[in-house]
Formats: sequence, structure tokens, C-alpha cells
Amino acid sequence: MVQTRTLGELGRQYGCEIHGDPATTVSRVATLAAAEADCIAFLSNPLYAKQLPDSRAGIVILQQKMLGQRQLAALVAADPYLVYAQIAAELHPEPPLRAGVHPRAVIAEEATVAATSQVAAGAVIGSGAVIGERAYIGPNVCIGEGVTVGADSRLMANVSIYPGVSIGERCVFHSGAVIGARGFGLAKDANNGWINVPQLGSVVIGDDVEVGANSAIDRGAIDDTVIANGVKIDNLIQIGHNVKIGEHTALAGQAGVAGSTTIGARCLIGGAATINGHIAICDDVAVTGAAGITHSITRPGMYSGGIVPMDDVKSHRKNSVRFRQLDSIARRLKGLEKTVANWSKGEDSKDQGNQDSKD
Amino acid sequence: MVQTRTLGELGRQYGCEIHGDPATTVSRVATLAAAEADCIAFLSNPLYAKQLPDSRAGIVILQQKMLGQRQLAALVAADPYLVYAQIAAELHPEPPLRAGVHPRAVIAEEATVAATSQVAAGAVIGSGAVIGERAYIGPNVCIGEGVTVGADSRLMANVSIYPGVSIGERCVFHSGAVIGARGFGLAKDANNGWINVPQLGSVVIGDDVEVGANSAIDRGAIDDTVIANGVKIDNLIQIGHNVKIGEHTALAGQAGVAGSTTIGARCLIGGAATINGHIAICDDVAVTGAAGITHSITRPGMYSGGIVPMDDVKSHRKNSVRFRQLDSIARRLKGLEKTVANWSKGEDSKDQGNQDSKD
Amino acid sequence: MVQTRTLGELGRQYGCEIHGDPATTVSRVATLAAAEADCIAFLSNPLYAKQLPDSRAGIVILQQKMLGQRQLAALVAADPYLVYAQIAAELHPEPPLRAGVHPRAVIAEEATVAATSQVAAGAVIGSGAVIGERAYIGPNVCIGEGVTVGADSRLMANVSIYPGVSIGERCVFHSGAVIGARGFGLAKDANNGWINVPQLGSVVIGDDVEVGANSAIDRGAIDDTVIANGVKIDNLIQIGHNVKIGEHTALAGQAGVAGSTTIGARCLIGGAATINGHIAICDDVAVTGAAGITHSITRPGMYSGGIVPMDDVKSHRKNSVRFRQLDSIARRLKGLEKTVANWSKGEDSKDQGNQDSKD
Repeated sequence: MVQTRTLGELGRQYGCEIHGDPATTVSRVATLAAAEADCIAFLSNPLYAKQLPDSRAGIVILQQKMLGQRQLAALVAADPYLVYAQIAAELHPEPPLRAGVHPRAVIAEEATVAATSQVAAGAVIGSGAVIGERAYIGPNVCIGEGVTVGADSRLMANVSIYPGVSIGERCVFHSGAVIGARGFGLAKDANNGWINVPQLGSVVIGDDVEVGANSAIDRGAIDDTVIANGVKIDNLIQIGHNVKIGEHTALAGQAGVAGSTTIGARCLIGGAATINGHIAICDDVAVTGAAGITHSITRPGMYSGGIVPMDDVKSHRKNSVRFRQLDSIARRLKGLEKTVANWSKGEDSKDQGNQDSKD
Repeated sequence: MVQTRTLGELGRQYGCEIHGDPATTVSRVATLAAAEADCIAFLSNPLYAKQLPDSRAGIVILQQKMLGQRQLAALVAADPYLVYAQIAAELHPEPPLRAGVHPRAVIAEEATVAATSQVAAGAVIGSGAVIGERAYIGPNVCIGEGVTVGADSRLMANVSIYPGVSIGERCVFHSGAVIGARGFGLAKDANNGWINVPQLGSVVIGDDVEVGANSAIDRGAIDDTVIANGVKIDNLIQIGHNVKIGEHTALAGQAGVAGSTTIGARCLIGGAATINGHIAICDDVAVTGAAGITHSITRPGMYSGGIVPMDDVKSHRKNSVRFRQLDSIARRLKGLEKTVANWSKGEDSKDQGNQDSKD
Repeated sequence: MVQTRTLGELGRQYGCEIHGDPATTVSRVATLAAAEADCIAFLSNPLYAKQLPDSRAGIVILQQKMLGQRQLAALVAADPYLVYAQIAAELHPEPPLRAGVHPRAVIAEEATVAATSQVAAGAVIGSGAVIGERAYIGPNVCIGEGVTVGADSRLMANVSIYPGVSIGERCVFHSGAVIGARGFGLAKDANNGWINVPQLGSVVIGDDVEVGANSAIDRGAIDDTVIANGVKIDNLIQIGHNVKIGEHTALAGQAGVAGSTTIGARCLIGGAATINGHIAICDDVAVTGAAGITHSITRPGMYSGGIVPMDDVKSHRKNSVRFRQLDSIARRLKGLEKTVANWSKGEDSKDQGNQDSKD
């Protein structure tokens, strides 16, 4: 069912100034480049500003300062991306649930599944699990004993939730995500072999959390691993045991957090960044992509490290060899500075002497 | 059923010069070191040349220049590895499909499944999906609504394909691969929380594409994520939303490509390399393993960066500390150069003066 | 069923000196900070020593030297973590198996499943597979043709095992693990396309091996990929084809090992470390987290490299720019050293001259 909205309606609904004919209608979203007259597009990243003048979009959401370059209808917003996100969700709503349990799902007798929820074919739900109102349990999802899934949460195909894990409301878990596997707790025995240390904690996940495809969050060793409300975890991310992540923190793809580390609220962790174990990162920290964070961070700000700049391979190798001489370079430089400084003194006194002799 | 081939037949079939008795027969492949008389082996990587003289392989595929070191039968090829690949496929063919739908598969009524395809137990296929001729849908594979799978493509156990994804012919998806999860599109709301930006594009995958175990390819935000013909993606790789990858490009294990980046044709991306978002890499670029590619690349060639050389941990720490002084080192060096240069001038003029005074 | 143990019993059983009332009882484990009187806690990492004096734990396991700071009952051990691991396993045993095959599992007629094993709903077991005594095959696990699973091994939900893989006894495979996918073997054809090189080896996994969530181990190209007894592999790890890993080696999360590399026994590979292909690492090597190991290692010890230290982003960028000048810096430093040394000689001779002239 196609939704149609006018410029006037959208302006009123989102508190945006409008520009152009308020009766202009749109029914779907598109990029500036691909948009037709029935589309609404947005301009946020300045990289794409050059596409604005020629865009055939029925409406463009943009900032005040870009208005001059737009002849057709526009919706002026301080944060065009945020307004776009809301309008896109309205024009393209998620498909509705089909409440009920598929006959090929397998639900333990002692599990509780809300009548308004949907359980797809092949899903397996263990004893004592509780599935909340309007939750979606996708095909072949495995839910262990005693797991709770909050209202409106969605577990996509092939997700695995270990026993005892607790999941809040409105969460999304993408395919292949694994929550609650045992942490990597090993003790060395007398023969240099490993003994598994029982991992007796669980994973507690707040509301509005998203976990990407094939990401893994381990259960705590004794206490729980805790993911606070609003945390967003991208694909292929590893969260070690006992980790705590604060509200609204987002981690991009392939980042990793080693065990027992605490990350504060509203942090942004770049893709493929690695965060050491047993450290603490305070609130409002941003970490650049592929950075290696080895120590605690106690002041908000942006941190980097880890990687050195890209280069053609010959130059990189030449400089890399020198990296292994860096300590020696620094020492030699200091030595040279001393020699030259001593000399300068000598010269000064010599000059002084000359000066003197001239007198 | 064992296949047996003679040296003479193989030489004719692959256009290779033969060396030794054309009636020599082989029926399986082996490494140089482990081969018996009924085996065919190959020599391509010079690391293994020392195993050639003692190899008991019935036939060895090798380059002309290595022929002198081989007493027994040989097949001479410009690219021994390529000829080996073809002969190995002939001697050890994939097991044939068993066409039909397993009674424990779950297929939506409105899906179309070719009679020549095989659908294994536990597979779940959504409404509107189309499964092509001779396709293989493995056990517990989940295929969303409206997905198309081209002829001769194979989806191994536990693969997840989200709704609307389009897959070409002769593709292989390994277990745990997830195609079409929503991209990591987030807009910040007024309260520092995140709003999910609807991900309305899909994933379009060409012919002859391979996707490794537990890799993830996100669907586009508005337009599609596009993987061209012949692209090879290894295990545990993350491909962000809106990414476009050109024909015959190969990415090795644990590489990652952030959103909206374009990679050209015939590129080779090393294992664990990280590629930034919103950049463009031209055709015929090679990137070394673990490199961090942060900017666009406009000229074919080999690129590196990211990591510094391995070392024993003490030396590495000593040099690493100096990395944080590198800007200061460079400035101090420049200062010293200036001092010494000024001096040299002074000395020159002094020398000149001396000279003068000598005159 | 709660287990209760006294301090006296534990001391005798684990050969530890006791401190305090031998009748003190505990029935569960806890952290020092959260423990109540019925709990046993341990102190191993000195980071947590400050929690010792105030801990309300009924018993604390600690080293002799920490005894002075503990008023209540204690168990003195040379390695408190090891003793803790054993006691925790005793107080919190794994839930017992429920032997038998779930009616919703799908087992090929020619497969052999021990009567003492448990096969959960949705599991699919191929022809010729052999499942050992007391093994656990979790929900929706897929086991290919001819796979053997040793006694007491456990495969958690959604694990995928490809045909022919051999698994020892007492192994654990976490959800999403993929064993035996084809390696990334590609040969370039005449048109710059790729031909898949058949991957004809298998994966052979010893006893007491653990493989983490969403990790992948590829099958060998010709010979097998081999994981020896007691190897511990954390989450999201990639093991390429033909790799051999020696006994009791442990790899932390997101590490990667490229194809045809050999790793010795008792190695410790840090999280997110990347190990190049076709190299050999000897026994007893430790590699720091996120290190890039590019060459063979022939002497036991600790190795690093790969990443440079973390920093605030401004400082990192300033120093990173200089990294690309490192070769030039080293050359300029050497030049300056020569100039200054020549001068020193000149000055010496001048001084000498002066000296002479003074005579």
C-alpha cells in the first residue's frame, strides 16, 4: 500500500520550513541522483552537494544554506538526515507481523510465547523462555532455556541465543548473531594444558539495542555482560565476557572489545577498532577506524592510534624498515643536538674570544 | 567412481607438452611430498621446488624451466596451478545433486522452486522466492521473501538471505554467510539516541560470485549494494551498505569494506585489510594484508600502510614510544640541519676570510 | 540441586593450606565485590587486590602473600585461578544431557548416533556421519556426510560441519562456528577470471578443542587442515586452508591465520592478531593483540608489531604524517652525523693546529 504525503503536511509534521508548492506530493525515497518526481531525497553529506541542482526529486530535505541551489520543492531542516530517517520510515514501513507460531517451529512446553508474537518455521525455543508481545522470532532461530525476549524485539533468521540471556524491548538481532556463548576463560593446568573456567554469568541487553549479522557477545564469567539501552552494534563484532557498554554507544563493523572492559555512554567506536581487555573508556569518546585502544581513556575526545598511513607498497616498506630503527634515530638525534649545542657554546666563547681579542 | 587419465590425454586436452611415457595413468591429486604413483601433483610456488626430485607422483605439472629436475612423467605448463585446478576438478567432481525438496524443508506456497534443484531438510524459503535450475539449498538455509537464486548456485548449510536479494548463476555461499541485513544507518535524535534509518535498497549479486563462511553483505540504504560477476569473497568479511565491487575482484579473509565505497575490477584485497567508507578504489589495485586504506586510490598498483613491522615485544615497545615523538623528531632534525647549514656558511665565510687574509 | 562444600573439604581436595574455620561452607561462586557469605571468590589479578579487605565472601582463594589482608576464611593456592576454575565447575556443573534424538531432528539412514548422545530439534545429520557417546548435537546444527564427532563433544545451536570433517573427544563448538568450508584457493584463468581450485583435504580436530562463536576453519586444499589436542580458538577467528596448529595453543577473538601456516604448541595468539600465510611459528611463542605477524618465528618469546600506540587523534595524525617521511628522516640524520663528524675532525685538526701554533 503506497503512502503519499504532501510537502505541506511534512513541513507541519516535522516542524520544517517549506519551499515551493505545498501540494507537491511524494510516495517514496530516492537518492538525489536517481530520484524521480514522486520521490523525496535528502542532502546531508557535502560530498553530494553537486548533485543538488540537477536532481529531479519532487522534494529535497536540506539545510537552509543549500536552499539557493534548489529550484523545486524543498523541506528545510537543521538535520536533514534525521528528518529523512523519519519520513523514510513512514513511507516504507516494516512489513506487519503475522502473529502466531508456525507449525514447524519447536517450542518447549514450559516456554511462554505471547499470542501477538510471530514464531517462524524451524525456530526452536527452550524451556522457560518468555517471548514478549509482538516479538518476531525468525526462521531457524535458536533460543535457549530461560531466555527472555522483550516486546517488539525481532530476531532474524539463524540467530542463536544461549540459555539465560535477557533481551529488552524493540531490539533487533541480525542473522548469525550469537549471544551468550561462554567467554574465553581458561586456566593453565600443571601440564600446560587448559582448563575451562565455568562462565556462570549471563548477558543482559537493554531496550532498543541492535546487534549486527554474525556478531558475538559472550556471557560473563561470574557477573553478567551488560549492553545498555540504545547501544548499536554492527556486523562481525566481538564483545568479550564481562564487558559493559553504556547507553547509545555505537560500534561499527568488525570492532572488537576484549573481556572485562567498560565503555561509557555515547561513544563511537570505528570499524575494525580493537579495544583491549580490563580497561575503562569514559563517556563521549570517539575512536577512529582500525585504531588499537590499549589503555583506559578518562577524558572525552577523539582517539586514534594503531595504524599508520596508507602508501604505495614501496614507500611503505622503506619507511617501515625505519620504524624498527626509531629508537636509535631518536637517540642519535639527541646526541647530535648535544654535540652541536656544545660546539655552539664553544663557538660562542671562541667568538667571544675573538671579540675580546678584537677589543 | 574413480576417473583415470593418461599423460597423453591430459597433454592434448590442456595443450601442454608432455615428458615421459604418454601411457602413464593417474586417478587422484596429491602434494609433491605425499604423492604415490597414481597421483598427479603440481609445482608452482618455488618454496616447494626442493620436493620435486624425490616426489613419487605419477605425473607432475610444472614449468619448462623445472623439467631438468624431474625424472618421471611431467606435464609442462606456463601456469601449472591453473592446469592443476582444472585436472583436479575433473578427477574429483562435486557430488551430484539429488533433485527434489526434502519433506522437512518449508517452502511458502507462492515460492517457485525448479524441479532440477535440491532443497535440503530444514531449509525455509519465503513467499515469492525463485530458486533456479540445479540450484542447491542446503540444510537450515533461510531464504527471505522475493529472493531470486540463479541456476547452478549453491547455498551451504545455515546461510541466511534477507528478503529481496538477487543472486546470479553458479554462485557459492558458504555456511553462516548473511546477505542483505540492514546497513548500519543511524541518525542521531535530539536526545543523543539513535534512530534507525530505513535500509530500502537490496543486494544484487552477479554470476560466479563466491561468499565465504560467516561473511556479511549489507543491503543498500536507498540504492542497492552491488557485487559484480566473478567476485570472490573469503570468510568473515564485512561489506557495508551501498558498496559496489567490480568484476573478478577478490577479498581475502577478515577484510572489511565500510559503507558507500566503490572498488574496481580485478582488485586483490589482502586478508584483514580495512577499507574506509565513501572512497573509490580504481581497477587493478592490490592491497597488502592488514593494510588500512583510508583514502581513494586512482592509479593501479600495490598499496600498503596500516601496520608496522613485527618485532620482539621489547624492541617494538621501544620504537613505538618513539612513534609518539615522531613529529618532534622531525622538527628537531630540521632545526639541527638549519643550525649546521648556517654554521657551514659561517665556516665557509670564515674560511673565506682566512683565505682572504692569507692572500 | 545446590552443592555445598566446606573449607576443610576444599583444602584437602585441592591440596591447599586453609585459613579460618574449616567448617565454613559455600555453595556458589561470586566476585570479591559481589560475594555474600555463601560464596567462594578468588583473587588472582592484582588489579582487584583492593577489593579483598571488604569482601564478604565466605571463602576467598588467594596466594600466600595476600593472606595478611584477609580476616575471614581463605584457601591458599599457588595459582588461585586454577583452583577457582575447578571448584566453580564442581559447584556449578553443566546441565546433564537428555539422551535421545528429538523427533524434529533429521538423521540420514546411514548415520550412526550413539544411544547416549543427545540430538536436538532441527539438527540435520548426513549420511555416514558417526556421533559418539554422550555427544550433544544442538538445535539446527548441520552435520555433513561422513563427519565423525567424538565422545562427549558438544556442538551448540546453528553450528555447521562440512562433509568429511573429523572431530575428537570432549570438544566444544559454539554457535555459528563453520568447520570445513572450502579454502580460498583460486587460479587466474586466461581472461583474468578466477577458477576455483578444488579443496580436497578435510579438517582434522583433536581432543579437548574449543572453537568459539562464528569462527571458521577451512578444509585443506589437498592435505588436511589440522588442529591438535587442547587447542582453544575464541570467537570470530579465521583459520585458512592447510593450517596446522600445535597442542594447547590458544587464539583470542578475531585473530586470523592465513593459509598453509604452521603454528607450534603452547603458543598464545592475542586478539585480532593477523598471521600471514605460508609461514611457520615455533612452539612457545606469544603474540600481542592486534599484532601483524608477517614472517616465520624460530625462537620462543613474545612478539609484537603491527600497531603503533594509541593517542589523541590530533597527535596521532601529526606523527602519522611523519611516518611517511621516516626513511627521509633517517637519511638526513645520517648525513648530518657525517657533516658534524667531519667538522669535529676539522675542528680537532684546527684545535691541533692551534695547539701546534701555541707550542
